[in-house]
Amino acid sequence: MTRLFAPGERALLLDSKGRRYLITLAEGASFHSHAGFFAHDDLIGCQEGTTVRTGSGARYLAVRPTLPDFVLKMPRGAQVIYPKDLGQILLLADIFPGARVVEAGVGSGALSMTMLRAGAQVSGYEIRADFAERARSNVESFLGAEALSRYSVRAADIYDGIEETDLDRVVLDLPEPWQVVPHAAGAMRPGAIFLAYLPTINQTATLRETLAEHPFVLAETLEVLLRTWHVEGRSVRPDHRMVAHTGFLTHARYIGPV
Amino acid sequence: MTRLFAPGERALLLDSKGRRYLITLAEGASFHSHAGFFAHDDLIGCQEGTTVRTGSGARYLAVRPTLPDFVLKMPRGAQVIYPKDLGQILLLADIFPGARVVEAGVGSGALSMTMLRAGAQVSGYEIRADFAERARSNVESFLGAEALSRYSVRAADIYDGIEETDLDRVVLDLPEPWQVVPHAAGAMRPGAIFLAYLPTINQTATLRETLAEHPFVLAETLEVLLRTWHVEGRSVRPDHRMVAHTGFLTHARYIGPV
Amino acid sequence: MTRLFAPGERALLLDSKGRRYLITLAEGASFHSHAGFFAHDDLIGCQEGTTVRTGSGARYLAVRPTLPDFVLKMPRGAQVIYPKDLGQILLLADIFPGARVVEAGVGSGALSMTMLRAGAQVSGYEIRADFAERARSNVESFLGAEALSRYSVRAADIYDGIEETDLDRVVLDLPEPWQVVPHAAGAMRPGAIFLAYLPTINQTATLRETLAEHPFVLAETLEVLLRTWHVEGRSVRPDHRMVAHTGFLTHARYIGPV
Amino acid sequence: MTRLFAPGERALLLDSKGRRYLITLAEGASFHSHAGFFAHDDLIGCQEGTTVRTGSGARYLAVRPTLPDFVLKMPRGAQVIYPKDLGQILLLADIFPGARVVEAGVGSGALSMTMLRAGAQVSGYEIRADFAERARSNVESFLGAEALSRYSVRAADIYDGIEETDLDRVVLDLPEPWQVVPHAAGAMRPGAIFLAYLPTINQTATLRETLAEHPFVLAETLEVLLRTWHVEGRSVRPDHRMVAHTGFLTHARYIGPV
Repeated sequence: MTRLFAPGERALLLDSKGRRYLITLAEGASFHSHAGFFAHDDLIGCQEGTTVRTGSGARYLAVRPTLPDFVLKMPRGAQVIYPKDLGQILLLADIFPGARVVEAGVGSGALSMTMLRAGAQVSGYEIRADFAERARSNVESFLGAEALSRYSVRAADIYDGIEETDLDRVVLDLPEPWQVVPHAAGAMRPGAIFLAYLPTINQTATLRETLAEHPFVLAETLEVLLRTWHVEGRSVRPDHRMVAHTGFLTHARYIGPV
Repeated sequence: MTRLFAPGERALLLDSKGRRYLITLAEGASFHSHAGFFAHDDLIGCQEGTTVRTGSGARYLAVRPTLPDFVLKMPRGAQVIYPKDLGQILLLADIFPGARVVEAGVGSGALSMTMLRAGAQVSGYEIRADFAERARSNVESFLGAEALSRYSVRAADIYDGIEETDLDRVVLDLPEPWQVVPHAAGAMRPGAIFLAYLPTINQTATLRETLAEHPFVLAETLEVLLRTWHVEGRSVRPDHRMVAHTGFLTHARYIGPV
Repeated sequence: MTRLFAPGERALLLDSKGRRYLITLAEGASFHSHAGFFAHDDLIGCQEGTTVRTGSGARYLAVRPTLPDFVLKMPRGAQVIYPKDLGQILLLADIFPGARVVEAGVGSGALSMTMLRAGAQVSGYEIRADFAERARSNVESFLGAEALSRYSVRAADIYDGIEETDLDRVVLDLPEPWQVVPHAAGAMRPGAIFLAYLPTINQTATLRETLAEHPFVLAETLEVLLRTWHVEGRSVRPDHRMVAHTGFLTHARYIGPV
Repeated sequence: MTRLFAPGERALLLDSKGRRYLITLAEGASFHSHAGFFAHDDLIGCQEGTTVRTGSGARYLAVRPTLPDFVLKMPRGAQVIYPKDLGQILLLADIFPGARVVEAGVGSGALSMTMLRAGAQVSGYEIRADFAERARSNVESFLGAEALSRYSVRAADIYDGIEETDLDRVVLDLPEPWQVVPHAAGAMRPGAIFLAYLPTINQTATLRETLAEHPFVLAETLEVLLRTWHVEGRSVRPDHRMVAHTGFLTHARYIGPV
């Protein structure tokens, strides 16, 4: 549905060179760049697709950010999981409305907001209190208050244990997920899915060994490669460079206790 | 939450060689294979992760199918969009709860059920009435009645026009999406997302040319490659073969009318 | 230069479905298939590109095999290194005419014939005498007697030591190349190149650790992916399936003794 | 064989950050960097693997450049074909000693020197006289006088015709290879190989259409992807970025005249 830009909302600005800027609209504020500035009030009350101009003539097209746009531009400390992997995690972890999910480490909240938007109830574990706070703030900023009601982040180390029980999914983005496997087994319902994102293949091999020693089946490890194309008139070819690696995804289903 | 297998539910059976079978549980029915049979009643009332045995000793582990499991095993005619692409589409088309989506062609409903589960309201166009019926049946079978209330499929050719207006997303899996671009432009709200899945690069180039002639921005074409790994003890390497191609994804944002 | 097919030569036959057959032409012999037979004499004296017919009308186009054609069809026991990797090895190991190369294990000789054709002098190590014999036979069959004069294969275990000295290159296709690193260091001239082909990443990591403990620099590990395309009229797209993995190539330069 | 660095030779310098510099050694000359300088005479008479120091303590390791090292650092105007593709071309075009090859456009000579080193006789076509001159100079510089005796480059447009006859291979790196197909057919012997390197898929599709209209068989199009790995202690993973595209390789065998 068409809604006009309102104060407090995010807008994604696109300049003539394809650079992107994420701003929060505020009455009386202005956006400054090397090419001059414009008043946020020029956008407030307009629809998406509006182009604003600075005094020196630079043009910025404004749209609302998508979740991938937001994730790549939001305040963040640790490396976020890339959108290419977020989409795959939704499918591999089979996130459904009402799913009881434990997530650790939460980081800046990119994965949290992806799963929350898909309807999950997410209990996060994050050892750094500042990260936990930022994740909550990012979730609220992008998804609003309803999502926060399905989200909690505790400043705890999931290596020490999981308080929840009868979980549908455990989704991990931390260095030693094999430390979590034994308590995950106790906290998950039969048929539940365990998924971990890991940067190196050594970590992945250690995780797979641990999973094989516990009641998990259908374990699979994979990597997602995304190749963008240049498609302009007579020039159709893959772009010259790409991200060759972010992380390995490993998922398995819990079938215990045996 | 732990729920026991009930009649009418789907179960995914896994044999000792990793083969998968999707069944619908029914009291009094049995599952037959070359290795003998077992009664569905042996599973009904059990939890996921239960192993049943045939008279001749073959073992089948039963879990509930995930959405990707179901998509690959459900009744289908046309080629379905693979899970690797479904996950990417959720992110690229930025599907959110309540999003007003037009989808065409619907095929067997794999993409419909992916977007419905993510909370969208989906109006489908499908020229083959038998496909439309099967898509509805697959959606109901996997997601239940609530999802059907957000889903309609009309037996119409979207090349002839789009009835809906003020759409948030238009998502296409049909041979000539460029025929849809002119009416999509009229049916979408400013800021809405257009996405098409196409098997060849020729079709993709034609679509991109058409998008460039209409008020769309941020057009991008990409392909998703998924590489699985063999991780067993000292043998850690990519699997020897992979799917090298399914389709090209193209997405853009509508910013008109200008 | 145009030369006519002669007895004793190899011919690659291509049928109407794209299947390939490698034969050795002999006067009086015939080629039999499920679609009938033709006499080798029908090809002898003809030029490449000739099509012969069986009595039942099946057609076979005959050309001389390229090195990649030969490698994929020659008598072989162990897995051969694929042409995609052979080409890369020529560049990474920087094979030049007259280069003094030690190669182990020789297997069926695919890599030997690739390096010999590029002008190298190759001393092979192969623990299985039958493999050594077949490698020599394949080299002679494809490259002729001159190449044999630059080729020797000894039935020895290179883990026990390298007899040669002042080597330009050491190229390995065997399970534990790290066992070779210490004596390779003694057998190579400063600036020489060490290269190993390994199926798993674990083996590769062990090799890299060993190289790092010896006087080698510029160590690099990589994998080569080859994606074929379907290009026919309006249908231009990658083929649907591909080889996702053969092996990892690791190369480094020796700079000792220090 | 061990040879000591001599005046007139190339040396590849490697600094402590992995940067590479290609120099031509000359008595009395010096190498200058932001980190001071050293005299070429410090290297002349030394063996590969020698480390020299500038007055301010920066260290440079010196080895002879490999062909890939040289190609990436030699004087060049147009884009060169990358080593990953050069290796593949040697195999796909099945370059053998004495092969009569026509190559166009020659550019800076990277492909010429690769095929010459493999023993081919190369007749080059290059419309820009300055490129032709640089290609000859690069070939002589890296391969020496013997290779030049097998190499000629004429300043001619191969679209206008091919003077040679009875060719074994025609290898093209120019924008419209389909213009060459008709005369290539007349200049090649039966069984000869045609190969073209093209940056876009549109060009590739046009070439394939033209090949299909002429007496060529076994046409194949492919792309080579090379993924490097980071292998250091406990951190084993693909590098984060890679070259996603250089060009498409298309090859076919000539079987005419029909």
